Amino acid sequence: MEKKNHRYCVIMCGGIGSRFWPYSRAERPKQFIDFLGTGRTLLQMSYDRILEAVPKENIVILTNSRYAGLVKEQLPELEDSQILFEPARRNTAPCIAWAAWHIAARDPQASMIVTPSDHVVTREADFIRSVTDGFDFVETHDALLTLGIEPSRPETGYGYIQVGEDVCGEISKVKTFTEKPDLELAKVFLASGEFFWNSGIFLWNVQAIREALRVHCPDVAAVFDSAPEGTFNNFASETEFINTAFPGCLSISIDYAVMEKAKNVYVEKVHFGWNDLGTWSALYDLSPKNRDANVTQNCSVLTYNSTGNIFAVRGEKLIVVDGLKDYIVADADGVLLVCPKSREQDIKRMVNDARVKFGDKYE
Amino acid sequence: MEKKNHRYCVIMCGGIGSRFWPYSRAERPKQFIDFLGTGRTLLQMSYDRILEAVPKENIVILTNSRYAGLVKEQLPELEDSQILFEPARRNTAPCIAWAAWHIAARDPQASMIVTPSDHVVTREADFIRSVTDGFDFVETHDALLTLGIEPSRPETGYGYIQVGEDVCGEISKVKTFTEKPDLELAKVFLASGEFFWNSGIFLWNVQAIREALRVHCPDVAAVFDSAPEGTFNNFASETEFINTAFPGCLSISIDYAVMEKAKNVYVEKVHFGWNDLGTWSALYDLSPKNRDANVTQNCSVLTYNSTGNIFAVRGEKLIVVDGLKDYIVADADGVLLVCPKSREQDIKRMVNDARVKFGDKYE
Repeated sequence: MEKKNHRYCVIMCGGIGSRFWPYSRAERPKQFIDFLGTGRTLLQMSYDRILEAVPKENIVILTNSRYAGLVKEQLPELEDSQILFEPARRNTAPCIAWAAWHIAARDPQASMIVTPSDHVVTREADFIRSVTDGFDFVETHDALLTLGIEPSRPETGYGYIQVGEDVCGEISKVKTFTEKPDLELAKVFLASGEFFWNSGIFLWNVQAIREALRVHCPDVAAVFDSAPEGTFNNFASETEFINTAFPGCLSISIDYAVMEKAKNVYVEKVHFGWNDLGTWSALYDLSPKNRDANVTQNCSVLTYNSTGNIFAVRGEKLIVVDGLKDYIVADADGVLLVCPKSREQDIKRMVNDARVKFGDKYE
Repeated sequence: MEKKNHRYCVIMCGGIGSRFWPYSRAERPKQFIDFLGTGRTLLQMSYDRILEAVPKENIVILTNSRYAGLVKEQLPELEDSQILFEPARRNTAPCIAWAAWHIAARDPQASMIVTPSDHVVTREADFIRSVTDGFDFVETHDALLTLGIEPSRPETGYGYIQVGEDVCGEISKVKTFTEKPDLELAKVFLASGEFFWNSGIFLWNVQAIREALRVHCPDVAAVFDSAPEGTFNNFASETEFINTAFPGCLSISIDYAVMEKAKNVYVEKVHFGWNDLGTWSALYDLSPKNRDANVTQNCSVLTYNSTGNIFAVRGEKLIVVDGLKDYIVADADGVLLVCPKSREQDIKRMVNDARVKFGDKYE
């Protein structure tokens, strides 16, 4: 399989997952947790599912040095050189740029998929089919490809992609990217059949993305182009360069830096049971319910007059609840949260309040 | 102080305090907890406050052998012989009978006060004045005296005492004892001014209570009268006798066995800031509130849209709560309870459900 040997995967796993606080913590964010009770964490599941499409040695993890121990513990089969540590958080464009320059130094013909580490895919065979079709496409076209998820509800938390003319198979030109819509607009999007959710999963040839960055985000591209010849072929020189240069990058998303500006942007419509597990409600929706429509993560529960709740506990614990409807009850590492699901957007603020008032240990 | 040397105090502390579960547990019930955050547990406070009225060596603790360690740890100044272990739970009449026979063997002239170990008294000087007046009365009258609390609300959880003709000072004949009334009746009681709460604190001469037991509860009295001469003067023989005979006693309360039947029953109207701390709501009422009318026991709390709650945690923990009104949130030793205060009468059932479903460790 000559072709497969030029395929790479970049798994981004530096996020802190504060929307699942206190179950997900700065010390052990969401991607390092076995949220579905399968025995594999979200990162491990992301790794497992890409192995059919990409050789193991072509997988690169991008994370924060704080999580070095977790990544090595959860993916012991990786070489140290496959794990890149960002010295600062600079959103996705600098992170993807580094990965592109890193991979291009090893294999100038490489194509790559970039994927978050904390999403769920329930139909892995369909995922592999879509990813393989995507690789085939970006290897034969000058294309920046994003995977678009057919929407199932008028979600206001995602960006949408409007699909243009069909190119081949499930792949089309992108007409527009849109910001998160309000509910009315989201309903229009859903009814039109033309709008797909932006999954944050991308495929492209390394030269195509480097070129696109040079044109549309020259500040970031210039940082990596400024590296002396051979920098990215040597672990020590690369690390030294990145530790100095990376913090100087703009903090900007790849959508804003490139995808919304470039002309050669395509979308592949995919159907593989995707869920970004972005909120407690998403986890609730995805999880099996008991007969009172409650969801339980790792705990014994006795409920009275209580429905529609999600209970998540780290450590052995009995939860006894009366008179709660549609709440999150999460207990881990010295923090208990009791909060209506409808107020989950405020959890980030609560984390911040807790840090200000009681210190970093509760982050 | 010849008179004081004949005064004894029996502190009953064998209860398991399940109404404060999971904060109060079978392994460490309510009376062994520093509920008011004063640095002294309820048992220690009960002991401390009686010391003005009774010599230290005349204090007797009646408890269960399961709590031997806790009693000795919390009251290290007591001799082993001052702690009596009931081999079985038989309600208050057999317990008080044993104490009376025990004390009478040591001092046939003794008078005694019997008090629970888990009530709160906020005005200790008034308490001592009332207790001293009570001792003076039972030492000069053939009287069984109970302390009556002036009611402040139409409480349906207590028995009431209807006061008859005045005898001296705050002491009157008892007209009737009543069972727990319904709310309508409790309101009538409150408005009448004739009804007082039955505090469960009693004073009498040891011969008077023994005689009353022989007349009104001969089954129980006969158990203790059957002891060979000298049994209660020797620790080993007493223990052996009790371990055999005590479990054979009827399980019956002193109210039902004696107080509701005897003719020589008196009530002393007292005003010393009494609270039986019988429920989470009682603890809530007694505790200082923050500006959102929430009460906190041993925990850091961040609240949003939440008022009227009581938060009680054993161990260091941050509680973050949104959208709870008038709830109990209690977390201790592997159990979390979230329950409306209005449903606190059901906590006993929850404890039972937890035991049936998940085992004794959660009791």
